[in-house]
Amino acid sequence: MQISDTDWWKWGAAEKRKALTHYPKLHSLFSERFSKSFTENKTSPPNFNAVCNEANEALVKEVFGKALPSAKISFNKELRLKKALGKSYADLLKALVNIPIHLPDAVVSVTSHNEVVQILQTCSDYNIQVVPFGGGSNVVGAFNMKEYSSPRIVLDMAEMKKLLLLDEVNHTAVFEAGIYGPELEATLNAKGFTMGHFPQSFEYSTLGGWIVTRSAGQESSAYGRIEDIAISLKVATPGGTLTTSSFEGDAEGVNLKAVFFGSEGMFGVITEAKVRIHRLPETKKWLVAVFPSFENGTEAIKQLVQKEIYPSVIRYSDEHETFFLSQLSHETPSVFSKVKSALSKTVLKFKGVESPSLMMIRLDGEKNEAELKREIAMDIVRKQKGFSVGESLGKKWETSRFGLPYLRDDLMERGIFVDTMETVLPWNKVVAFKKKLFTELQQSKAFGYEKGILLAHLSHVYTAGTSIYFTVITARDEENPYAQWEEIKKIVTDGIVSEGGAVSHHHSIGRDHQHWYVRKTDALTQQILRSIKQTVDPNNILNPGKLFDE
Amino acid sequence: MQISDTDWWKWGAAEKRKALTHYPKLHSLFSERFSKSFTENKTSPPNFNAVCNEANEALVKEVFGKALPSAKISFNKELRLKKALGKSYADLLKALVNIPIHLPDAVVSVTSHNEVVQILQTCSDYNIQVVPFGGGSNVVGAFNMKEYSSPRIVLDMAEMKKLLLLDEVNHTAVFEAGIYGPELEATLNAKGFTMGHFPQSFEYSTLGGWIVTRSAGQESSAYGRIEDIAISLKVATPGGTLTTSSFEGDAEGVNLKAVFFGSEGMFGVITEAKVRIHRLPETKKWLVAVFPSFENGTEAIKQLVQKEIYPSVIRYSDEHETFFLSQLSHETPSVFSKVKSALSKTVLKFKGVESPSLMMIRLDGEKNEAELKREIAMDIVRKQKGFSVGESLGKKWETSRFGLPYLRDDLMERGIFVDTMETVLPWNKVVAFKKKLFTELQQSKAFGYEKGILLAHLSHVYTAGTSIYFTVITARDEENPYAQWEEIKKIVTDGIVSEGGAVSHHHSIGRDHQHWYVRKTDALTQQILRSIKQTVDPNNILNPGKLFDE
Repeated sequence: MQISDTDWWKWGAAEKRKALTHYPKLHSLFSERFSKSFTENKTSPPNFNAVCNEANEALVKEVFGKALPSAKISFNKELRLKKALGKSYADLLKALVNIPIHLPDAVVSVTSHNEVVQILQTCSDYNIQVVPFGGGSNVVGAFNMKEYSSPRIVLDMAEMKKLLLLDEVNHTAVFEAGIYGPELEATLNAKGFTMGHFPQSFEYSTLGGWIVTRSAGQESSAYGRIEDIAISLKVATPGGTLTTSSFEGDAEGVNLKAVFFGSEGMFGVITEAKVRIHRLPETKKWLVAVFPSFENGTEAIKQLVQKEIYPSVIRYSDEHETFFLSQLSHETPSVFSKVKSALSKTVLKFKGVESPSLMMIRLDGEKNEAELKREIAMDIVRKQKGFSVGESLGKKWETSRFGLPYLRDDLMERGIFVDTMETVLPWNKVVAFKKKLFTELQQSKAFGYEKGILLAHLSHVYTAGTSIYFTVITARDEENPYAQWEEIKKIVTDGIVSEGGAVSHHHSIGRDHQHWYVRKTDALTQQILRSIKQTVDPNNILNPGKLFDE
Repeated sequence: MQISDTDWWKWGAAEKRKALTHYPKLHSLFSERFSKSFTENKTSPPNFNAVCNEANEALVKEVFGKALPSAKISFNKELRLKKALGKSYADLLKALVNIPIHLPDAVVSVTSHNEVVQILQTCSDYNIQVVPFGGGSNVVGAFNMKEYSSPRIVLDMAEMKKLLLLDEVNHTAVFEAGIYGPELEATLNAKGFTMGHFPQSFEYSTLGGWIVTRSAGQESSAYGRIEDIAISLKVATPGGTLTTSSFEGDAEGVNLKAVFFGSEGMFGVITEAKVRIHRLPETKKWLVAVFPSFENGTEAIKQLVQKEIYPSVIRYSDEHETFFLSQLSHETPSVFSKVKSALSKTVLKFKGVESPSLMMIRLDGEKNEAELKREIAMDIVRKQKGFSVGESLGKKWETSRFGLPYLRDDLMERGIFVDTMETVLPWNKVVAFKKKLFTELQQSKAFGYEKGILLAHLSHVYTAGTSIYFTVITARDEENPYAQWEEIKKIVTDGIVSEGGAVSHHHSIGRDHQHWYVRKTDALTQQILRSIKQTVDPNNILNPGKLFDE
């Protein structure tokens, strides 16, 4: 992986990046709303010399030289920087406004399970902290520490990406945990299979990362969350190896795999996983519909899911996000220009729909099956005053679905605050909560009062409730940018927790959510988590301070 | 619950019991095969005076008198006996052949979560062991102890059976954990809902019992195992209360509910659970088919499930079980007489099918949906040389599905060995394993060499594999009945484990499986389980000696 002075903190491949100026309508919307031109990207590239601490090379060399002379260790400053931060707004802000970033002392690239065990044992003996690093896409401060008083290495998992077993009869595969999404899917697709896990971070995240953050992909309603997909885990810890039960369903005592889902590197390093795989769907049918109100569409989706009809993909944007998507049209035909044309036609056609909410769902199966499911869904949509706007928007979305993160960095560089926050709520709370949260944010200077933008969508659905995903956009407070983020994060997360929502639906805890997580977790649960930690990692070297502080 | 001298060890309600003499064909089959008449039930009723130890009433009275004077305590010998045994062949053999049974010192009936916490704290202070008791239907020695040197009470959960919340919008319900299956379902059915959990023990097992044994019901392929059904648990421990995260899907740290599934009373007492509920299906369509070989039907079911079409019910009997079912016909029309007529007609019609294997699957949904799924299934069945024998057998099965356990006690009283054992295996191992196991059993005197009967069926299916459930029948070794059971259990479980199967698919560990479970569980997993035990139950009073010996 080549990195440069200017792009070490950015998302993805340089050639896929987008600038605000490519989207004239969006550009004018922001300019008018926030009374700034945003025409030039005035941010100077983050100065990575300014923000870097020196590595404690001597210690690492001494320890590894003695115990593990063959380990692949790098002290390269650029590499250490690249492995020091996640991709959250808060993490990237540090780079952009030159807030000091504490770098790890070394990056150690690993190639086998046994090597990982040896490294963990050695680091435990010498009290060197270890942060496992997959794709580095976390947005919760998962690489940040409460204190930086101990030596610390990053364990780079990227070379552990082998397919170890593809069982075409029993529809399972075993992969090393450092494999990235595209390579994993390509390997399976070549044999006619898919694992069906497509988080927004898909291009730059790994199987192991999905597991320790309890990731949910865009097709989670059909293929399940990563907890449903990964049948069995192999875990390296300072105390040795643990392998969980290898069955999809059994009653063989207590299955401890659940303890590692969401463990965020604190309980061990996932090195391999056995996963469920599926034949690629024979037919995919999109149903794209517009509802006169967010409430109508929410009710329709609830009814569909509670009939046990699970769309493979569900994306339901509220009226604000639907409008925002329609503003993303630009010169070349894109998914967003399609939104615009679909909406203008239909809005004209159906009077009374002033603020449409856009739903895209995909129904898979044999041809007849997918069509029947779409008919059943369409019937429910109609009863909730929705109307179809054709399939093409869904297909377009699918081809460009990993594109949105590429715009974010440019917005940040132009001085725009843009962060995303999410939770899961029971069906009957979600509409009211969205309104309430918007009202609360509008009281806040950090949000820019009534200038602030709150977009929302539903994308992971259950019979008992739904995820809701918020995008918050406003002008950056140039004087106190970090305090601005803290205030907005607090309003949103306080709101979520007081409503009874989960601290996170699919982003996990990290340092950013720890405060709320600890407050709502009972004492006995915390004691059990600590007892597990003490058992697998008695010297507390594994990514400390995420689920709890020691 | 009224108990009598003669039926305290038997299954279910007296009026539903069946005698071998009601089934003339089966009766002659056994008589001829085992060269015994089995005409009279010659067993004298178990002598419950002979097998009972006296209770340590003084100690229990002293402790409870001080700390919990209002607790409902019984020292009644009959009640203690009823709560001392599960329903396995091995447990019941003790009663039948007057092997001494060590009774608990008292039965304490509880009515609230807080009372359970208080009792556990008190018992922990005084080192009194506590065995939680739901329906008492376990078949793995879950109530048995390694040693009987400590005082011990049974915690009878049967009065904790309230519905605490029925959320018709979000399709969830909260029940106290002592509720039995029929009452739970009736409560939900009255509002148009079902929880969809129907284990064979349904009539005499409880929500809490299902959770701690990782139960799977007959409709698990549609509604999930109990782990999928129970969203959240409330647990009482000597260390206080633990409540798990309340969402169906979230990334809120580590969800510890998995630690309590399969914990068999060692980590706490489940007092409440929030569960997923579903609208009763609009349409249920049965597809009953016969295959020329067990292998054909197994392949058909695999293909169906791997297309992501999950029947609500699946019962696929091998050639031996199919024949056995056809012998269960008797004077009144029954599900079994239907098997006979279906098979005789079709066997005549389709030559070459000498040993048919019978599959019954139920496909649910909206009318069109259920029909389409049946069409897709029928297409697969035909390609595997199966043919439909009409729907009626499935419907009949459904109305009588909890009936089979009622025959078992009578067989035992007549001197017949009858036990069931089960596992889960990858699809490609199941056919060969069944053959291999039969061959191994036929080498064994305990099995009666070639006289022994091995029946098998598949009833819980996954994309990666299937459960396989065995019924072993032979003449009881009157001289060494317990050693006979131990030998057969060892042959079957050794075989399962060496094939890579789970020690149990849905019966859990208990004392009967502990040996195999511990041997195949890695050291670190065992250390974590012990650290959890130490945290929640430092004095080791909670049903010790199940997943591990202390």
